[in-house]
Amino acid sequence: MSLNSIFQYFVPKDKKFFPLFEQAGANLIEMAKLLQETVYSTDLTKRAELNKKLEDLEHKGDNITHQIHLELGKNFITPFDREDIHALASSLDDVADFIHGASNRMELYKVHTPSQPMKEITDLIVEATEHVAKAINELKDLKNIRNITDSCVRINSVENKADYIFDKAVAELFEYEKDAITLIKNKEVLSAMEDATDKCEDVANVLESILVKNA
Amino acid sequence: MSLNSIFQYFVPKDKKFFPLFEQAGANLIEMAKLLQETVYSTDLTKRAELNKKLEDLEHKGDNITHQIHLELGKNFITPFDREDIHALASSLDDVADFIHGASNRMELYKVHTPSQPMKEITDLIVEATEHVAKAINELKDLKNIRNITDSCVRINSVENKADYIFDKAVAELFEYEKDAITLIKNKEVLSAMEDATDKCEDVANVLESILVKNA
Amino acid sequence: MSLNSIFQYFVPKDKKFFPLFEQAGANLIEMAKLLQETVYSTDLTKRAELNKKLEDLEHKGDNITHQIHLELGKNFITPFDREDIHALASSLDDVADFIHGASNRMELYKVHTPSQPMKEITDLIVEATEHVAKAINELKDLKNIRNITDSCVRINSVENKADYIFDKAVAELFEYEKDAITLIKNKEVLSAMEDATDKCEDVANVLESILVKNA
Repeated sequence: MSLNSIFQYFVPKDKKFFPLFEQAGANLIEMAKLLQETVYSTDLTKRAELNKKLEDLEHKGDNITHQIHLELGKNFITPFDREDIHALASSLDDVADFIHGASNRMELYKVHTPSQPMKEITDLIVEATEHVAKAINELKDLKNIRNITDSCVRINSVENKADYIFDKAVAELFEYEKDAITLIKNKEVLSAMEDATDKCEDVANVLESILVKNA
Repeated sequence: MSLNSIFQYFVPKDKKFFPLFEQAGANLIEMAKLLQETVYSTDLTKRAELNKKLEDLEHKGDNITHQIHLELGKNFITPFDREDIHALASSLDDVADFIHGASNRMELYKVHTPSQPMKEITDLIVEATEHVAKAINELKDLKNIRNITDSCVRINSVENKADYIFDKAVAELFEYEKDAITLIKNKEVLSAMEDATDKCEDVANVLESILVKNA
Repeated sequence: MSLNSIFQYFVPKDKKFFPLFEQAGANLIEMAKLLQETVYSTDLTKRAELNKKLEDLEHKGDNITHQIHLELGKNFITPFDREDIHALASSLDDVADFIHGASNRMELYKVHTPSQPMKEITDLIVEATEHVAKAINELKDLKNIRNITDSCVRINSVENKADYIFDKAVAELFEYEKDAITLIKNKEVLSAMEDATDKCEDVANVLESILVKNA
């Protein structure tokens, strides 16, 4: 008996949770792409508008999480353990928080010229959210558990890259930035970005934990 | 069959864990109110005494957590899953750590004049701990699951407010505080305060997870 | 019926997971001792080499985690809940990350003269990893659950000490270090070290959670 057949046995066809998780995943990609537009833009008015849009999408994500909770309250049969549905929804929420957080810090701290490492980590956030969304969509189909594991491995690898860029960027700030307050501002923005990829890794951990429980 | 009746079915009358959780909740409110006294006081001797009291109450909280663990070792039947009792106790402990942490940083870093946003976030900590204690007490009675959910929603909303005040306060520090070291000190104190409300949100998450598991 | 006999009933003789956890524990001790060598050394070339070795051991730890995951995929019977095996492996991984992180920050930020508190916290990291490894080995034998609990209590106590040293060290930085950027660098290194002991406490929490679930 393969892993797949066993897993499918435990997963009834679900029409309530998976569409919501899919929306949450798509929302994260959209947010990551707006952040990407922000860091590559030099138009301050446009960047303020993008930050406002990110705030709206964060609220949209909150609403999706809320609907998942409502469904949990209404349904006795769930495609996997109730607490795992809760954990997955929470971890997706955290990613949204930090993507908006990164943009918001740039806006609040008036970091008007995003640095090269900020652009690079943001590119990685886009990549990570795409893998997150892919893994979540596979969770629905379950044609191939291996695909979910693969996405998780890729998310981990993207997080490692972001970590490396973050470390190097902070080291360079310490080396070349002589104004302490400018240094802190830049470090805080980089840190929110790096946290966004960390939170994608947390999603991967929840997914892996769901797989090992049901395998 | 309503949610309530099912939930009650799983929760035997418990005389061991709920009284301890209630004590932990009451302890958090007391700590939050001492922190509030601290940030509104200008008397440095009194503030040092309040910080000492907070340390004592943090230890009192540690003892309650320890007693919950002892009860887990002695009892085979628990009102809800053993690991959730453990998680709830840990999350309450974390709130206590950060409330004392905020006071302790003010003392250690000699932040003698708490700022307006520090007062505002502390007011929100008091509010959050009151909702936490209320939710925990409802967990005992279980007359109405909706009340617990309501408290969780309120905790989330308080945390959002604290987040907003924190972000604005840090932005203002970056705008007006020209001394980097003073800036960092103030940011660290604000950050411990904001973390205290984050940890209240974690308690709410554990409570929600308990509800969804048992609903 | 004692706790032990019940617990043993649930734990079949396992030859797959425990040897891997044992390796992970031993790897942490080795990493902690390399960090200790680093903070007590004044030879910059040697310190760069030690940092490289720590990076290698972090990857070794990643491989052990990966093998634990592979075993989870292959085995239907596990010595304790699948998700707890996953959580324990993840928490051990986090300790390794921060031990290497502390060394890496010293290297990247060019903190060439580790301070007295850095040495003291590192000594505590060595102590904490020894307790972690001991607890994990006891998990295998299960002759005495009390020993695991004792190790967890000791880990908590070590973490408290590290916390205290960290707080005092940062207070002293604020008091005597007039260069903000030097202050931040030192604070960041201390913070990674203190986080390493925090992550040992997280391991203790996972272990306690496993005990309460199976007791």
